[in-house]
Amino acid sequence: MDKTQLAALLQQVADGTVSVGDAVLQLKMQPIKEVDEYAKVDLHRGIRQGVSEVIYGAGKSKEQIRGIAQAMLDDGQKTVLVTRMSAEAAAYVGETLPLAYHELAQTGVIGEAPVPNCSGKIVVATGGTSDIPVAEEAAITAEVLGNPVVRLYDVGVSGIHRLLSHMDAIMEARVIVAAAGMEGALPSVIGGLADCPVIAVPTSVGYGASLNGIAALLSMLNSCASGVSVVNIDNGFGAGYMASMINHIGG
Amino acid sequence: MDKTQLAALLQQVADGTVSVGDAVLQLKMQPIKEVDEYAKVDLHRGIRQGVSEVIYGAGKSKEQIRGIAQAMLDDGQKTVLVTRMSAEAAAYVGETLPLAYHELAQTGVIGEAPVPNCSGKIVVATGGTSDIPVAEEAAITAEVLGNPVVRLYDVGVSGIHRLLSHMDAIMEARVIVAAAGMEGALPSVIGGLADCPVIAVPTSVGYGASLNGIAALLSMLNSCASGVSVVNIDNGFGAGYMASMINHIGG
Amino acid sequence: MDKTQLAALLQQVADGTVSVGDAVLQLKMQPIKEVDEYAKVDLHRGIRQGVSEVIYGAGKSKEQIRGIAQAMLDDGQKTVLVTRMSAEAAAYVGETLPLAYHELAQTGVIGEAPVPNCSGKIVVATGGTSDIPVAEEAAITAEVLGNPVVRLYDVGVSGIHRLLSHMDAIMEARVIVAAAGMEGALPSVIGGLADCPVIAVPTSVGYGASLNGIAALLSMLNSCASGVSVVNIDNGFGAGYMASMINHIGG
Amino acid sequence: MDKTQLAALLQQVADGTVSVGDAVLQLKMQPIKEVDEYAKVDLHRGIRQGVSEVIYGAGKSKEQIRGIAQAMLDDGQKTVLVTRMSAEAAAYVGETLPLAYHELAQTGVIGEAPVPNCSGKIVVATGGTSDIPVAEEAAITAEVLGNPVVRLYDVGVSGIHRLLSHMDAIMEARVIVAAAGMEGALPSVIGGLADCPVIAVPTSVGYGASLNGIAALLSMLNSCASGVSVVNIDNGFGAGYMASMINHIGG
Amino acid sequence: MDKTQLAALLQQVADGTVSVGDAVLQLKMQPIKEVDEYAKVDLHRGIRQGVSEVIYGAGKSKEQIRGIAQAMLDDGQKTVLVTRMSAEAAAYVGETLPLAYHELAQTGVIGEAPVPNCSGKIVVATGGTSDIPVAEEAAITAEVLGNPVVRLYDVGVSGIHRLLSHMDAIMEARVIVAAAGMEGALPSVIGGLADCPVIAVPTSVGYGASLNGIAALLSMLNSCASGVSVVNIDNGFGAGYMASMINHIGG
Amino acid sequence: MDKTQLAALLQQVADGTVSVGDAVLQLKMQPIKEVDEYAKVDLHRGIRQGVSEVIYGAGKSKEQIRGIAQAMLDDGQKTVLVTRMSAEAAAYVGETLPLAYHELAQTGVIGEAPVPNCSGKIVVATGGTSDIPVAEEAAITAEVLGNPVVRLYDVGVSGIHRLLSHMDAIMEARVIVAAAGMEGALPSVIGGLADCPVIAVPTSVGYGASLNGIAALLSMLNSCASGVSVVNIDNGFGAGYMASMINHIGG
Amino acid sequence: MDKTQLAALLQQVADGTVSVGDAVLQLKMQPIKEVDEYAKVDLHRGIRQGVSEVIYGAGKSKEQIRGIAQAMLDDGQKTVLVTRMSAEAAAYVGETLPLAYHELAQTGVIGEAPVPNCSGKIVVATGGTSDIPVAEEAAITAEVLGNPVVRLYDVGVSGIHRLLSHMDAIMEARVIVAAAGMEGALPSVIGGLADCPVIAVPTSVGYGASLNGIAALLSMLNSCASGVSVVNIDNGFGAGYMASMINHIGG
Amino acid sequence: MDKTQLAALLQQVADGTVSVGDAVLQLKMQPIKEVDEYAKVDLHRGIRQGVSEVIYGAGKSKEQIRGIAQAMLDDGQKTVLVTRMSAEAAAYVGETLPLAYHELAQTGVIGEAPVPNCSGKIVVATGGTSDIPVAEEAAITAEVLGNPVVRLYDVGVSGIHRLLSHMDAIMEARVIVAAAGMEGALPSVIGGLADCPVIAVPTSVGYGASLNGIAALLSMLNSCASGVSVVNIDNGFGAGYMASMINHIGG
Repeated sequence: MDKTQLAALLQQVADGTVSVGDAVLQLKMQPIKEVDEYAKVDLHRGIRQGVSEVIYGAGKSKEQIRGIAQAMLDDGQKTVLVTRMSAEAAAYVGETLPLAYHELAQTGVIGEAPVPNCSGKIVVATGGTSDIPVAEEAAITAEVLGNPVVRLYDVGVSGIHRLLSHMDAIMEARVIVAAAGMEGALPSVIGGLADCPVIAVPTSVGYGASLNGIAALLSMLNSCASGVSVVNIDNGFGAGYMASMINHIGG
Repeated sequence: MDKTQLAALLQQVADGTVSVGDAVLQLKMQPIKEVDEYAKVDLHRGIRQGVSEVIYGAGKSKEQIRGIAQAMLDDGQKTVLVTRMSAEAAAYVGETLPLAYHELAQTGVIGEAPVPNCSGKIVVATGGTSDIPVAEEAAITAEVLGNPVVRLYDVGVSGIHRLLSHMDAIMEARVIVAAAGMEGALPSVIGGLADCPVIAVPTSVGYGASLNGIAALLSMLNSCASGVSVVNIDNGFGAGYMASMINHIGG
Repeated sequence: MDKTQLAALLQQVADGTVSVGDAVLQLKMQPIKEVDEYAKVDLHRGIRQGVSEVIYGAGKSKEQIRGIAQAMLDDGQKTVLVTRMSAEAAAYVGETLPLAYHELAQTGVIGEAPVPNCSGKIVVATGGTSDIPVAEEAAITAEVLGNPVVRLYDVGVSGIHRLLSHMDAIMEARVIVAAAGMEGALPSVIGGLADCPVIAVPTSVGYGASLNGIAALLSMLNSCASGVSVVNIDNGFGAGYMASMINHIGG
Repeated sequence: MDKTQLAALLQQVADGTVSVGDAVLQLKMQPIKEVDEYAKVDLHRGIRQGVSEVIYGAGKSKEQIRGIAQAMLDDGQKTVLVTRMSAEAAAYVGETLPLAYHELAQTGVIGEAPVPNCSGKIVVATGGTSDIPVAEEAAITAEVLGNPVVRLYDVGVSGIHRLLSHMDAIMEARVIVAAAGMEGALPSVIGGLADCPVIAVPTSVGYGASLNGIAALLSMLNSCASGVSVVNIDNGFGAGYMASMINHIGG
Repeated sequence: MDKTQLAALLQQVADGTVSVGDAVLQLKMQPIKEVDEYAKVDLHRGIRQGVSEVIYGAGKSKEQIRGIAQAMLDDGQKTVLVTRMSAEAAAYVGETLPLAYHELAQTGVIGEAPVPNCSGKIVVATGGTSDIPVAEEAAITAEVLGNPVVRLYDVGVSGIHRLLSHMDAIMEARVIVAAAGMEGALPSVIGGLADCPVIAVPTSVGYGASLNGIAALLSMLNSCASGVSVVNIDNGFGAGYMASMINHIGG
Repeated sequence: MDKTQLAALLQQVADGTVSVGDAVLQLKMQPIKEVDEYAKVDLHRGIRQGVSEVIYGAGKSKEQIRGIAQAMLDDGQKTVLVTRMSAEAAAYVGETLPLAYHELAQTGVIGEAPVPNCSGKIVVATGGTSDIPVAEEAAITAEVLGNPVVRLYDVGVSGIHRLLSHMDAIMEARVIVAAAGMEGALPSVIGGLADCPVIAVPTSVGYGASLNGIAALLSMLNSCASGVSVVNIDNGFGAGYMASMINHIGG
Repeated sequence: MDKTQLAALLQQVADGTVSVGDAVLQLKMQPIKEVDEYAKVDLHRGIRQGVSEVIYGAGKSKEQIRGIAQAMLDDGQKTVLVTRMSAEAAAYVGETLPLAYHELAQTGVIGEAPVPNCSGKIVVATGGTSDIPVAEEAAITAEVLGNPVVRLYDVGVSGIHRLLSHMDAIMEARVIVAAAGMEGALPSVIGGLADCPVIAVPTSVGYGASLNGIAALLSMLNSCASGVSVVNIDNGFGAGYMASMINHIGG
Repeated sequence: MDKTQLAALLQQVADGTVSVGDAVLQLKMQPIKEVDEYAKVDLHRGIRQGVSEVIYGAGKSKEQIRGIAQAMLDDGQKTVLVTRMSAEAAAYVGETLPLAYHELAQTGVIGEAPVPNCSGKIVVATGGTSDIPVAEEAAITAEVLGNPVVRLYDVGVSGIHRLLSHMDAIMEARVIVAAAGMEGALPSVIGGLADCPVIAVPTSVGYGASLNGIAALLSMLNSCASGVSVVNIDNGFGAGYMASMINHIGG
């Protein structure tokens, strides 16, 4: 409600054509109305960033996943990413839709295979082999969003020479996703070696005092290296999405 | 140790000029030696990123801070950032060194005032007025590292229209730092509005079930918005540094 | 025991017709006896508030649920609400009793369909679609207790314009139930927009650092908005019951 | 400007005693007002939420508190509530402003003494004498917001007859605020006796396994009584505010 | 061999009906006896602690339980208590040994039915019906150890009059076991009413913020009533054993 | 007025040395008595629970402690126990009242020195010397309540022979209070040696992973010995009170 | 290739029985070897850490385990230890490889049976019978690594005489591994008796407040005995490995 | 009690010279008596290991420390170690006793300076400079116990080349103590590099999510490197003692 509209309303009150009560109600709702011009902002997001639509498969039936994906494709979406997708759901969806399913990562890509639209590289690293499913969720997410991805798996800190033998990849990355469970030290070591942002992903790999990933999470939040930020435990998608957002800043 | 060197060593063993024990020792240390070429990498970091040196003031005496800063300036550093610096230490350091001290943020900038060297803008936002000290640490860090910074303070989610009245700044940002204590919801709301990376900083503002910032931390890690990652509680410096790293990707 | 009765007892002691030991025992129990007049208070509650009886189905066998419900109906109860009721139990109970079963909410309504007996509206809102089962438990509870209910689902804070597009419903509500998992920010945002009480329900939706709903719970307890109070994780029934109690104050 | 003041202004417009132009000017000045750069006092909230503004004193200097309060009074606010106000700040503010200070509750009321504007009674109960400061914050908040308040202190569950001797007050209440530390059982017992909403306030009273109020908080969240909801530890203000909101529904 | 049996043996030596040599042999066989290599049944404890041995069934196979029980009976034990015993194990053991199995309590009594050997009464009370399995473990344990037991089930604090209607039993008890989940307030209320020791047993009954019994445990540890001590969550056996030990002090 | 005093009064009535009217008057004065408005001293508890009243000194001013104690003595109480009493408060109270102050235990005994009224012995044991303040609170409480007390200090499990050298005391005890911080293993070891109830008191002695006594608390709750129950961290009073209650069962 | 094998190879070079070229080839093949793409078996560790490789079976398929083991044997490894190996995997691996499987410990030894190569003894002790699986993992690990092992099972602190009857073994040990769940007191008691290093292993044995081994873990970290250090919950392998490392220092 | 003694006792029972009751009592105490021969074992410990006496200074007054130390020296002790000793206590003790005080480590050495009595070296490493006080406590403890110590400070994982430049020291160590706060990754990296036991010491260095050292503690317990065990947070003494015990195994 701009000044003219406000004056008009008050004039109506003065004229008696709008009651005091109605005017009170209209004025109470003003501060909110101003956001209307941004309401369609999420339609713009897709256009500006080229982000594909994503379906979070956990808790959805295979019928729901297929239904949502079909609707997206019908709407003109070229590629649809499905995370936390069971093999059973994949089999079902794959019957009628073009699906590339990555069982280890429990991730499916429906529609056209993504192609890189960005020059920078994202390195996705893991501490151990058990962290690979989470890392693959990040890597596939990043690929679907148009990023070239380099994988460095099983380079954990208890065998530091394995990590050090990949210094070239680390120094060339524009963003690094580092996934680790147990003591979660990988992002700190990488953060000290690299000069690019590191997205740390704690994984629930471990037992006992790993507390389902809390130990790794705390470790990463307390990283003594600068340039490290953290996402939720096992949130490979979130890390891949964040890394892609950062990578696209560089074009 | 390349193949030639290895062969030479073994030849010495065969010749009896190197004992078996010495050869075992030399071989045990091999995988590590290969990293030597990267050992001076951190000297390069300063050159490549233009990052100023930082002194973490907590737990250091005023004499230590002045001594370290003086040494850095003598070494040719133009600007030195000091975080967690008490007013008392600032008074002492300011006696002999050119210091701009920000009491609210407990942060000092020694030497030349920084100038922006990067085109993108970093927005630093807070939920309440009590979060401002942490946000200022982030903002000053980002400024010292060459970033233009826009401050949006006290735009917390319980008065959402205050945040919405700043949509222009949010849409124009290249990176956003969002600091909040208590329920820590600000990064989620901003993450849903913006299409750029959001660095979430939980603050220890609150009482009771805020658990000194743990409530805000957990809230941010569980953000339902994509493109949000998190640093440690009250880690304004870490957020500002990460934001700067991301912002400089865009030049 | 009033003064006369006490004197009578002591006279019996003086007379030797009551032993000292028996008198000690009787006096020890006095402060409690005074509550006897309130002992049947819960019979009055049903009359005064028109609250239907509720069966908490978790941990009860289908035979137990049917037996209890039958007894309540025989006792004159018109409507019986069953929460945490499995589909299997519903099928069994439905064989002999008139049951409307809501599978998503795991909730059954036995007997007459409830009709509103109260003028105010209760809004039940959720952050995401995964929170709907908990919200439905709240909504059905409120309906069974005689409240008109307006549902606003999937209006979470990462897409704030979805929530803002329902400002009319929010401003007209007499009480609002806001259910959310993950970061649990919805009640804070609604609490800042509305001028009525908000009952916050954390849900166990999420993974990793959501700690089965603890993150959302802490977030809600720390809400920076006034007029927000919280019930247990996934306690849709408790929220619906509390909302109904408040709504009926307004008649 | 609260709802009543807004209606009054509009009535003046309707009556012709205030011109449309003047009304536009007054309303446009409202939304966000800077006060001495340290706090955006959100005067618009009075309209949206229908209550007077409150100053949360913790972390604010005595000068800040006086400045904000003065601005509010200048703006036409009749009564200003200050919570978490130190005796020292009270002495300072009281020099220039009419202040009634409650030291036990660390709460001050500036301006006109509040008068009840609502027929229902709010009972504020505590488990022990150590919980009284939190309870008083709730009680004074409720009084400032226009509610008649009945205090029942030190009626904890280990001496249940003390509570039972006040059954009249409990049965007559329209809303009850129950504050307790240690085992936090009071709200459950009251919730089972009363047929009105109970707002539970855990306090940090206790030691060892009370975990600064976490034990009481968990106890209250798990209350087996219906009609109980919970606010943050030691959040007397929040409980009093919520209780007032509920009480005013009944007029 | 418990204290009574030892005294009997020694009496036989004193009487001359058992020779010194035979008694030496019997006693030397006692201390530590291997049973099928999987458990050292510490038969000497009966002497030192004055009670019969108990088999903790959790984690033991049905064959192991039968083997250990058989060895105990062969050794002269009249009654053997088995806790955490599955229905399947009970069926197996019952094939060859005289077993009374209590399915709700998952508890079996092998051998002679116990008879009270003590004049005081133990009251076992629960907050709700879901706490009964734990309470029954306590009650049966106490009965096997020779105590008269009075059960007061479903007398939780949200319906305090139910508890108060049993004041006679509470005032006459020599020890009380109070089991409750959720908010765990029952022991505090009973502790305030009774003048005998109260053993509090938190149960894992509840959901969400009950944290599998931690909420009830903390509540009980913080009881504001004196004369309350606490055992582990769901530890009905421990409570019954402790109560029996206390009760036997009074003969 | 405790049970003995009540019986004495009634005996006087039975004897005719006190009139019925006077007895009525005395009893009617009992139930709830206001003391200087800051505490309802529940004098009726003495009757119901059979013990003298105790003043919990923490959080009370020295004036409050003296006022409450004076009122109790005026009311006929022979001995008053004050726990958590500072040396400063003790000095103040000692000016006007007969006080024996135990600084280590922060405990004061006002009025007549207690004499044993019970045949059984209570052993109070500690793991280390740092646990003695808590143990002394327990020991003095037990002595005030009429129990003979045997102290076994610094007999922790890392020097098990020190404990074993006191087997006589352990075997003769009717109840044992075992206080320990750090790993809290003492009650388990004693519980395995003794055949009487053991009240375990975790202390906050320790650092780091002792978590202010939580480690010891958890250890004690998980004791593998039967006949062990637990009170709150540092709750020496609670342990002494519970032990006395148990000890008096045996007369 | 472990240290011994490396020395042997070099000796052969020194002796002239292996040519320098062949030795180069063998060493160059060592560092990082891909096995079927699912694991980089770090064969170089054998050199650096002086021990044989171990396969952590959890999360690996039976095909993966067999593949990795086969590669190790092909590489010259004489004995391969597999931890957390299911009976099903053991059956599968045993079809083609020489496997000794210990079902209780879920541990397999492939290849040659290990023989002691060290003079000192490692004692492995447990508190209860339920801790034996973890202890066996430690014992078998130590045996595979060449240590003589003495087992002392079910010697927990609630029956301290059982432990004391094995003082000879305790005094003769060079290292002791002490595994215990529940209250976790065993390492403290042993640490006080022995004069050698004690490796404490908390186990997840217990329920309720044992928090899946956290109680035992905290207890052990707070041990009042010197010479005790701790590994992760249920980490029998880690304890056995650490004990072996220490034991071999003594030759 | 051997067989002869037992027979003698029983004969006395048969003869009537010992009552049945007395015999029961004597038999109940048997299993314990057997440990008497080990009771003086801790006197032997000092002899065998050459361990100096240690005074834990926390919670002791300066007078107590001086008194205990004086007594030890009088008893013939050559060197006394005092940990957690304030500068004030050091000044006081130094007045009358020969004291070398290390302020950073809050540690004092009274009497003769220790000399190495052992050939192996202990490396003490820290992640940062703030960890040095804890590390110094470990180093001085080890030195007092006769070990040569090599210090590697500020070699944390965010600057991994600093650590790698000290590979010689790491490879030559017989035991390593690794102290680190924040993310606590140092022991994992060192454990992967070294082939000797690593004692990990979490420190309370850090803020926010470091939770006073809990983050580092969990990280170390979850170390993916073998040969790492952990002591309590900030327990430098415990680490130094454990390291010395291990080091002396090698002579």
